[in-house]
Amino acid sequence: MKSLKNNLYTETGWEVFENHFNEDHIITTGSNFLIGNGYLGYRGTFAEWEADRYTACIAADTYDQVAPELRKELCNVPNALFTRLAVNGETLDMRPRDEQAEYKRGLVLRDGRYLREQAIPTEQGTLHLKVEKFASMANVHLIAMRYTLRADADIQFTIETGIDGRLWSLQGEHFRTSESSVEDDLLVMENITVEEGIKVVIAENTLLSGEYPEEIVEEEKRTLRRFDITLSAGEILTLEKTVATYHSNDLAEPRKAAIELAKSESYENAKISNAAAWDEIWSQSDIEIDGDLEAQLLTRFNLYHNIIATPRHAPLPIGARGLATQVYQGAAFWDQEIFNLPMFTYTQPEIAKNILRYRHETIDGARGKAKRLGFQGAFYAWTSGKTGKELFPDFFFTDLTTGRKVRNHFNDWQIHVSPDIVYALWQYYEASGDWDFIIEHGAEIAFEVAQFLVSRACYRKDTDHYEFHRLLGPDEYHENVDNNAYNNYLAYFAIDIALTIFREMEDKNKDKQDKLMRKIGLERDDVLFGWADLHAKLVLPEPHATSGLLEQFNGFFTLEDVPLTTLRERLIDPDEYWGYPNGIAVHAQALKQADVVQLFALYPDLFSQDIIRANFDYYEPRTEHGSSLSPSAHGLVASMVGYHEKAYEYFLEASTIDLYNMSRKVLSGGEFLGGIHTAACGGVWQMLIFGFAGFHPKDGMLRFTPTLPKAWTQMRFPLTFQQNQFSITLTANTLEVEAATENTKAIPVQVGDEEHSLASGETVI
Amino acid sequence: MKSLKNNLYTETGWEVFENHFNEDHIITTGSNFLIGNGYLGYRGTFAEWEADRYTACIAADTYDQVAPELRKELCNVPNALFTRLAVNGETLDMRPRDEQAEYKRGLVLRDGRYLREQAIPTEQGTLHLKVEKFASMANVHLIAMRYTLRADADIQFTIETGIDGRLWSLQGEHFRTSESSVEDDLLVMENITVEEGIKVVIAENTLLSGEYPEEIVEEEKRTLRRFDITLSAGEILTLEKTVATYHSNDLAEPRKAAIELAKSESYENAKISNAAAWDEIWSQSDIEIDGDLEAQLLTRFNLYHNIIATPRHAPLPIGARGLATQVYQGAAFWDQEIFNLPMFTYTQPEIAKNILRYRHETIDGARGKAKRLGFQGAFYAWTSGKTGKELFPDFFFTDLTTGRKVRNHFNDWQIHVSPDIVYALWQYYEASGDWDFIIEHGAEIAFEVAQFLVSRACYRKDTDHYEFHRLLGPDEYHENVDNNAYNNYLAYFAIDIALTIFREMEDKNKDKQDKLMRKIGLERDDVLFGWADLHAKLVLPEPHATSGLLEQFNGFFTLEDVPLTTLRERLIDPDEYWGYPNGIAVHAQALKQADVVQLFALYPDLFSQDIIRANFDYYEPRTEHGSSLSPSAHGLVASMVGYHEKAYEYFLEASTIDLYNMSRKVLSGGEFLGGIHTAACGGVWQMLIFGFAGFHPKDGMLRFTPTLPKAWTQMRFPLTFQQNQFSITLTANTLEVEAATENTKAIPVQVGDEEHSLASGETVI
Repeated sequence: MKSLKNNLYTETGWEVFENHFNEDHIITTGSNFLIGNGYLGYRGTFAEWEADRYTACIAADTYDQVAPELRKELCNVPNALFTRLAVNGETLDMRPRDEQAEYKRGLVLRDGRYLREQAIPTEQGTLHLKVEKFASMANVHLIAMRYTLRADADIQFTIETGIDGRLWSLQGEHFRTSESSVEDDLLVMENITVEEGIKVVIAENTLLSGEYPEEIVEEEKRTLRRFDITLSAGEILTLEKTVATYHSNDLAEPRKAAIELAKSESYENAKISNAAAWDEIWSQSDIEIDGDLEAQLLTRFNLYHNIIATPRHAPLPIGARGLATQVYQGAAFWDQEIFNLPMFTYTQPEIAKNILRYRHETIDGARGKAKRLGFQGAFYAWTSGKTGKELFPDFFFTDLTTGRKVRNHFNDWQIHVSPDIVYALWQYYEASGDWDFIIEHGAEIAFEVAQFLVSRACYRKDTDHYEFHRLLGPDEYHENVDNNAYNNYLAYFAIDIALTIFREMEDKNKDKQDKLMRKIGLERDDVLFGWADLHAKLVLPEPHATSGLLEQFNGFFTLEDVPLTTLRERLIDPDEYWGYPNGIAVHAQALKQADVVQLFALYPDLFSQDIIRANFDYYEPRTEHGSSLSPSAHGLVASMVGYHEKAYEYFLEASTIDLYNMSRKVLSGGEFLGGIHTAACGGVWQMLIFGFAGFHPKDGMLRFTPTLPKAWTQMRFPLTFQQNQFSITLTANTLEVEAATENTKAIPVQVGDEEHSLASGETVI
Repeated sequence: MKSLKNNLYTETGWEVFENHFNEDHIITTGSNFLIGNGYLGYRGTFAEWEADRYTACIAADTYDQVAPELRKELCNVPNALFTRLAVNGETLDMRPRDEQAEYKRGLVLRDGRYLREQAIPTEQGTLHLKVEKFASMANVHLIAMRYTLRADADIQFTIETGIDGRLWSLQGEHFRTSESSVEDDLLVMENITVEEGIKVVIAENTLLSGEYPEEIVEEEKRTLRRFDITLSAGEILTLEKTVATYHSNDLAEPRKAAIELAKSESYENAKISNAAAWDEIWSQSDIEIDGDLEAQLLTRFNLYHNIIATPRHAPLPIGARGLATQVYQGAAFWDQEIFNLPMFTYTQPEIAKNILRYRHETIDGARGKAKRLGFQGAFYAWTSGKTGKELFPDFFFTDLTTGRKVRNHFNDWQIHVSPDIVYALWQYYEASGDWDFIIEHGAEIAFEVAQFLVSRACYRKDTDHYEFHRLLGPDEYHENVDNNAYNNYLAYFAIDIALTIFREMEDKNKDKQDKLMRKIGLERDDVLFGWADLHAKLVLPEPHATSGLLEQFNGFFTLEDVPLTTLRERLIDPDEYWGYPNGIAVHAQALKQADVVQLFALYPDLFSQDIIRANFDYYEPRTEHGSSLSPSAHGLVASMVGYHEKAYEYFLEASTIDLYNMSRKVLSGGEFLGGIHTAACGGVWQMLIFGFAGFHPKDGMLRFTPTLPKAWTQMRFPLTFQQNQFSITLTANTLEVEAATENTKAIPVQVGDEEHSLASGETVI
């Protein structure tokens, strides 16, 4: 067993439990111990808790907006695992009382199972509680819980279990009606959302291990079964709940589907099929680490959360805070493509494809945004929900010194989202060879992004160059900048990809190309004179001849160069925003997050290692890491330039953002900010695979430049490349690539300067 | 006699006096009663006052910067009119004691003479003081004062007079050394400036009307003559001072020149030659108004201040607050060309030419600024001093809620200064026919501004149009806007003028053109493809098809439309800035000053009267007039659209900004803000001539569409046009244009639909 920070421990690296309950951390632990499956996220709270302690079950694809001044967000749906105990008519306070108490709570990551064990003292004796629950990966509409009580004396008590519809919500009450009924011995709650009229149906089935009198209790927005129980010493009560959730965006008759599912599935069967589904997922995506149990656990914890945050049942966005909360509106940011996706692209490509299809399905939202702002093509939303319309409000932050709303321009000026998506779809194509995806989905995205970029670029007659003005790069502390290095390179490569696709389709898929061009109104001249001209003449910030430094944007090096510690002393309010309009970093060389360094993370071959290192040396001490995206990008690039200890430190920082971070602000100005930083989870995979293993495929070849952290004796992970499977085993001195016996073609592998061709069933060391 | 506000009165419209002294207004009155001649401005304070009451003599062309963090500004030079009285060894407090006291102070505008009369009670009896002083228009280096005392009893007193070098200064002590001496019976003070090492020499000559013992008294930075005086009842003492000021930017030996001048000129002679010089000026520029004595005085007060603020001895800038103060660094803004100059262009064209030559002489500063910001050609400074380098600091305002400096972008984004200058030089050319000026000075300005505009414009491939982005228009509450209507039209016409000059020179002055092109590195292709393309494809905001409204900039109409009164309630601090970064007007349709309306003031023929009226109706109620430039532009345009009463109200507002404004902030955060709003002074001339007289010359023709304010029976004014003189007399129903007998050619005149050709000596009614 390995003790971890924050009263956590793991035994095998497949589970994480807390052995001490801390009321102050209920928001954090509720997120960390989340179960989910990309359709539902059920917070890792106690079954006995109510809304005031941030219980929630967030359902994907339920976007609803209560009022124009409030933000659209996913619904928190009724909690059908709600279960409470009463002794002598008094509801038990379930709070574990001291450190010595029998208590644990946490997750078994292997099959996405929440476990809680706890001794519950009563006047009659002690009840020993064990709660097990999961959100099924085999059927995403299903969540199930087994609630077991063992008495160590004769104890009489009442148990109430059912559906709790008394919900909290960040942006107002989403349900205009909430109706409960009993049907076929199931509790059914049917809620209708305010704006979209989405019908959300929850059907609950409860099975008790003995015969006890049952009574239905109706409270406001709550329907419960009440059982009066008497256990004798040593006797065990088991209560098994299977809960089905469907809504009208899933199918036309959610009620029927929910009832059928809740009736048909037993707890034990559901558990078995869920475990099988997880087995399959881990076989594709697990990373095994030997010699460092904490690193093993941290890695799996992050992979787990990237997995459960990611919709796999339909093309939908990956929420920036997953399904753990409504924060950030359950919407996709550029994080999705740049942080969450690579793990799927190289291990579960069908999932990556699904998410990229989401971008294609929402392209009209991006077109609408471009048009509204006076541009052509597709300008993807900074905050993208169901339709791809921009969800980010024009006024987001409040100036703490004046109480005035601040106009941030993440939505209007952070144009790199569009090329980021093109980057990801091409990464998917290069990893999978899935040209059909390009024809059916990718081409339209790439073409419309190219059209957008041409219209957004500024051509200067005097220099015969294009520039991009009025930008925000990833470093959000500097708004309204010109020729941000990250932005311009990403835009350049997006145009490059669009041109490549255009030419390939011209050769191979002329009919499809013509059809697509007609559909989107693209003319050949747009490509020949628009894209090609921008491609040829776009300003691309170059490394300085002697220092090797890339300037983050025009004039960055002229800003005040002041240490972060000094800068921080200028804060008037510790919570004030550092950026626009007049925060402490606006006129300083102080970055919120990786920007030039982020560029290297995406294009490891763009510059020499010396240049990457020089820039890392310059920018890293000037970076405040005000974003959870920053540490993993730094960790990855630290590996690239041989800063192995620093890389490991960043790995620890990025991988513990959620699990260890006790001081993290989860409430700000009364606003709930909890949830899982899913981009960091995806970033952890990248630090391990792109960083430590140095995996950088190129031109259909697997390439590795590995350096294992000192303490690790071995790291093993699967990769899917060109629809073939590989297993990579890395030790301090060896790297072994094993091609699966089912593989269909030989793939070249390069490690260091050595190159091999690896056919099915072959292994190279 | 006409009593005016603020205890002021006039008798003939040629003078303005206060008959009550108010200590609270000493900053305002010190500016209002300023004497000056474009070289020196001597504040209308008491001779007995010292620096603590804002005495000052500001000298043109003495720019000096004390320290890098302080602003460059003109020097306040030693006060050689300093004179104090003592009775029984006690210096007299000269403050007039009550309303009944014999007291007046003010100006005789006819010859730019300051007058002060005052009874001074002493224990021995009353002294009757009369002070007269002027800054000579005949020799700008000369100021002179006659200080007369009449005793109504036998009175013994001491008089001390000399040079007071104890100066105040907004941006630090400018003199590193200050040396006094007596030479040839003159007091001489020689000061050397800190940064530039400018040697400023003051030579003072005093002549007393009787023989009294004289003693030289040296105090710190002060050298005085002391006279012990005894006057018997009815006896008069007259003290005449002539003071010469020269500095090393005037000539190599300022000391010699100062001593010569101070010795050679008597008070009476200086007074006579000054009066003659003023006669000449008024014959060129006076506006006579019958039937409204207040309007007559207000008009002359403003013309006077425009005249004395304007350098005529050398090509130098007109300070935004004149020579009354160091505020705004004694520097030129766009005000100079758009507000101050037209009066000179049409009445004293040599002065206008001189000021425009200043822009030519400082073009290297504008080139440097363009280059520094990454552009070509000439980007004139927002705040332009001696060299044309940008004097405006990057950080100007302080955010009152945080104490943090605010980065305003007047300097970097208010690019209309450059086309404004081209507008003015072309206005000068069209008024004067002075093609030589264009060849020698104007062409280089126009060409370099065109080069700048081409490099600053953004060509959009998708629309095949040029746009201007990231602008500030005249309305400074909205920074970072695109396609500001004022900016784009001014830029368009600047290009148009540059092309016209280029083509004309090609025909007429090919050699000069070639030489100029070589000098500035201009290629024919720059003109053919750069200027011509921008001219053909620049986005010019068009009036809306039905409403006729021009949008001030892209998206202005989408901003919150909230009444100014409501908006004002959102102020947290009454002194906070309404604009960037997060002031109350930033996201509202609230203007600091005329913007679209300003465009109409410059181009009365650009749109129909209906469209101008529709826009005036829309923008005027949304304009806060936070700039002193705003009322005159509104008054002028109100006349154009037939809003005669409103035009008169704006005339009263603009013409009394300095004279009546008692509540005006002259100190802010300890910073002196006093001075004369010289642009408003120039604006008053425009309201009368362009507005009431409806003077809009076109294609070498004098055009008038007059409407005299109701109360006025007659308005008469001179104009100089095409080097010919005209006298215009306007009554309610008639307009008489009289061509001077000396005129050299016939000039067409249009009034309403009637057109006449007016030869020398002819008159048309």
